[in-house]
Amino acid sequence: MKRFTKDILINKGKVFNRNFVNCLSGYKSLNLIGSINTENAKTNLAPFSQVFHIGANPATVGVLFRPHSVERHTLENILQNGCFTLNHVAENFYKEAHQCSARWDQSEFKATGLEEEFLNDFKAPFVKLSPLKIACVLKDKITLAVNETILIVASIEEVYVAANAVEEDGFIALDKVGSITVSGLDSYHATNKLGRLPYAKPFQKTE
Amino acid sequence: MKRFTKDILINKGKVFNRNFVNCLSGYKSLNLIGSINTENAKTNLAPFSQVFHIGANPATVGVLFRPHSVERHTLENILQNGCFTLNHVAENFYKEAHQCSARWDQSEFKATGLEEEFLNDFKAPFVKLSPLKIACVLKDKITLAVNETILIVASIEEVYVAANAVEEDGFIALDKVGSITVSGLDSYHATNKLGRLPYAKPFQKTE
Repeated sequence: MKRFTKDILINKGKVFNRNFVNCLSGYKSLNLIGSINTENAKTNLAPFSQVFHIGANPATVGVLFRPHSVERHTLENILQNGCFTLNHVAENFYKEAHQCSARWDQSEFKATGLEEEFLNDFKAPFVKLSPLKIACVLKDKITLAVNETILIVASIEEVYVAANAVEEDGFIALDKVGSITVSGLDSYHATNKLGRLPYAKPFQKTE
Repeated sequence: MKRFTKDILINKGKVFNRNFVNCLSGYKSLNLIGSINTENAKTNLAPFSQVFHIGANPATVGVLFRPHSVERHTLENILQNGCFTLNHVAENFYKEAHQCSARWDQSEFKATGLEEEFLNDFKAPFVKLSPLKIACVLKDKITLAVNETILIVASIEEVYVAANAVEEDGFIALDKVGSITVSGLDSYHATNKLGRLPYAKPFQKTE
């Protein structure tokens, strides 16, 4: 195995370091965040790989944003009106999802052809094609001292998912849903299920 | 699509709600965290799916811990001596990794047969079998007001990975590394690469 120290990484240059370090945490979730500027009714859609579970009761999710030093429409919309949607990305539209990260003047929904939809009076737009959609409401905003990234903490208000992907114990079969995963900044992956394992107890071999 | 509101989820009961909500963020990384109690030299190894990228320069990672209301050896060790390791889990030992979540009296390294190793004088133990290992040092501890979960912010000091998995631009091919991904609390998945996509620009179709 090769050893990479902090100094070696810095000496390799900015691009190498960014690609390398972005891969270190492992596979990441891939969500499109839908938001709206309520002043001019302009919608926004952006891919995020830093969305993570915070708690089940109350159902809470976290999203990490890069420092608020340049224009960030998604973050500004969320801070303006307190709501956004999470939309899982599936294999049949991951290229359009990636394309949402370009600097568009128009709404990314229009630019990429991903159709927007509004459900049950929720203010922020969902992605019509997405197989798992979540309505979120802003609860907290924390700036991390280490590098000024911004952690948005949000409650999960409503979820839309195919009924046949939800098992009896509440587990959602993401392979049935069709969700994909991402590594680093730009590498997309489908999955093969290895198995679900039972609650672990000492001296009971896992089969 | 079926609609699940907050109230519907609560009415389904604790187990259903926990399984369901834990799946919502999407696929998650899977790391074994190695730590040590320096008072009695007892090592600890525990699986975590809430490890995420915070920044590339300085290289920074976050780990979310459930509330510090019961004994949590990993968190206590990190707060005691300020260091821990992240070890990617591969298909050939994911059952042992899962088994580390049982309540063992002895070190999980001994209990599960996953051999520990110490590298270059770093205080915390690594998992010998792991194909990607990271030495981390505690930088910050933030308690989230929403549910008292604890976010540990750490610097990445050193990385060990097979040289042939690291591409010229720094990207680490996690499929070559063999890392797997997890969904919900207990479902494990290998991956199939769909592709890496180029930096997105407006009006340039992604191929």
